[in-house]
Amino acid sequence: MSVFPNQPPTIALAADGWSVDILDQTALPHRVVIRRLRTAADMAEAIRSMRVRGAPLIGAAAAYGLSLGLREDPSDAGLDAGVALLRATRPTAVNLAAALDRVTAVVRPLAPGARAEGAYAVAAAICAEDVALNRRIGEHGIGLLRARIASGGPVQVLTHCNAGYLATVDWGTALAPVYQARSEGLPVHVWVSETRPRGQGALTAWELARAGVPHTVIADNAAGYVIQAGRVDICLVGTDRTTATGDVCNKIGTYLKALAARENDVPFYACVPGPSIDWAVRSAGEIPIEERDGNELRVVASGDASDRVVRLLPADTPVANPAFDVTPGRLLTGLITERGVCPASAAGLRGLYPERAGA
Amino acid sequence: MSVFPNQPPTIALAADGWSVDILDQTALPHRVVIRRLRTAADMAEAIRSMRVRGAPLIGAAAAYGLSLGLREDPSDAGLDAGVALLRATRPTAVNLAAALDRVTAVVRPLAPGARAEGAYAVAAAICAEDVALNRRIGEHGIGLLRARIASGGPVQVLTHCNAGYLATVDWGTALAPVYQARSEGLPVHVWVSETRPRGQGALTAWELARAGVPHTVIADNAAGYVIQAGRVDICLVGTDRTTATGDVCNKIGTYLKALAARENDVPFYACVPGPSIDWAVRSAGEIPIEERDGNELRVVASGDASDRVVRLLPADTPVANPAFDVTPGRLLTGLITERGVCPASAAGLRGLYPERAGA
Repeated sequence: MSVFPNQPPTIALAADGWSVDILDQTALPHRVVIRRLRTAADMAEAIRSMRVRGAPLIGAAAAYGLSLGLREDPSDAGLDAGVALLRATRPTAVNLAAALDRVTAVVRPLAPGARAEGAYAVAAAICAEDVALNRRIGEHGIGLLRARIASGGPVQVLTHCNAGYLATVDWGTALAPVYQARSEGLPVHVWVSETRPRGQGALTAWELARAGVPHTVIADNAAGYVIQAGRVDICLVGTDRTTATGDVCNKIGTYLKALAARENDVPFYACVPGPSIDWAVRSAGEIPIEERDGNELRVVASGDASDRVVRLLPADTPVANPAFDVTPGRLLTGLITERGVCPASAAGLRGLYPERAGA
Repeated sequence: MSVFPNQPPTIALAADGWSVDILDQTALPHRVVIRRLRTAADMAEAIRSMRVRGAPLIGAAAAYGLSLGLREDPSDAGLDAGVALLRATRPTAVNLAAALDRVTAVVRPLAPGARAEGAYAVAAAICAEDVALNRRIGEHGIGLLRARIASGGPVQVLTHCNAGYLATVDWGTALAPVYQARSEGLPVHVWVSETRPRGQGALTAWELARAGVPHTVIADNAAGYVIQAGRVDICLVGTDRTTATGDVCNKIGTYLKALAARENDVPFYACVPGPSIDWAVRSAGEIPIEERDGNELRVVASGDASDRVVRLLPADTPVANPAFDVTPGRLLTGLITERGVCPASAAGLRGLYPERAGA
């Protein structure tokens, strides 16, 4: 069951039963390009260059990448090399490392000849779980949207980056409540922030347009303005890693939007599937913040057929390009998880995940 | 006296003594293009398309534009038409309308044959005053930078948009203290936010590079992160219009940076030349916020010789593109004016401008 008919899957086993087809997100919103990946190196490149992106999706992608690697070399050395290759692609989202750990735990005890098959099974399970988790986030989140609806107009949602179906196997995290609302006939409009430097707002606009959800793209700079102007009822974002204490690491710029929401008494929620919670991390400072290539700021490449490139800054202009920031839990109204909504705090998370209380 | 040798003037009378040369900022940072303007319509186009931009500079530009118009038609009808044409170019910065009013007050009583000459004289006076005002802002501001310097490293300044010499006739507003620091040997480093959608951060980086001031460009989204990480000592921004109550209307995104500064106890100042204060406006809601063409978000054009264009969003993607926001005075540490530093409040401004107390 998917969000809307005929959507290209973000990731799927190919018809041959072993290679992996991905929707190449660097070609969106201009072209729908499906790429067939056959090696762990193919997958590592796809993750690193953000052909697949979004914390839940890169978890699934890493699991399939390791499956491809074990098909190439199922030895202990092959397993270790595949894990190392994929782990090094992107540091911030906990899902990626967690997926590799999960596959490894299953396949290391197996005979080499059985490892690839075991890995594919874990990858498929991760995908299935992701869809189910996100769908439940949508079910828990729609109540919050319904509660904010004023008489007449649609619920005004603001989101940042892309935490839609494209960031996951299906449904999305921050957009799951939006799609749930859409499917239940609740009118909704989404403010989509552009999300420089990579422009994931264009991905969000693309998938909302395909799903028939009204939306408006704004510059990241304009998020404070629309919140201040009373044009936003609720903010929903995803997360790449949430600490055991409820701090939310997410796409760079999330923190600024949370500050504007709090200043204007607009509720701000992170949509947090359980696998995005890093129970081992209790302080935001422990999360590695990816620093990406400065050329993401200096140059803009079009994903359309023209393949044109525009230079914004000279090659020698000094640039810093942190890809994530951390929003302290105290700035958030709450976390929307697959188990329900809780305060963004250690106590809040413990209440929903009592089995992790000792973590 | 200018900020650094051989800088191309942002605006100047041409050698013929009547046409006006502007530095075309849409070609920066790639090319230095001087355009010669000969009619009020030329100037209106240059202001509208942001070939000249920045509140102080578009005040000077409007005055010269009206001078050109009066050279074409010095009749009452010609005067009125010139004012109407230029006033309609951009609504938010108070300097533009104020400059037109000032020229009109001088030239309307004159015989038509004397009007153009009168207008040129007022335009020249506006330019000379701008340079003097900005220089004094630099002298008042450097004390704040010196007070923030830690042992060892440079003062870390964060700025938004371009409020440098390019936004003025010379010196700049927010960058005047930076240039003053540079000329006095005080080490300084500037964090430059990109300032989507128009990318005025590239202008700031260009002029800082020419002046030899160390700087780093960041995405607008990253401003909260660098402030939160303790890497910013002071924030300095310009203003397009400051109300009599100390609220600061400035480039969209200023508000978000001010929120992050306050949250992290980093001082945040607007650099406010007297002509940017609108004594008639006491509530931020009275300031018209310019809504610019949505294609500024959908398409990126390079100013380099290639003249390439890259599409970011399909033509039918809904976009909102407000160009300014208002930061309430309570979020600011103070205003740096040509008369000194004051709280961003009605009382603060009255203290420095007692002659406007009844305004």
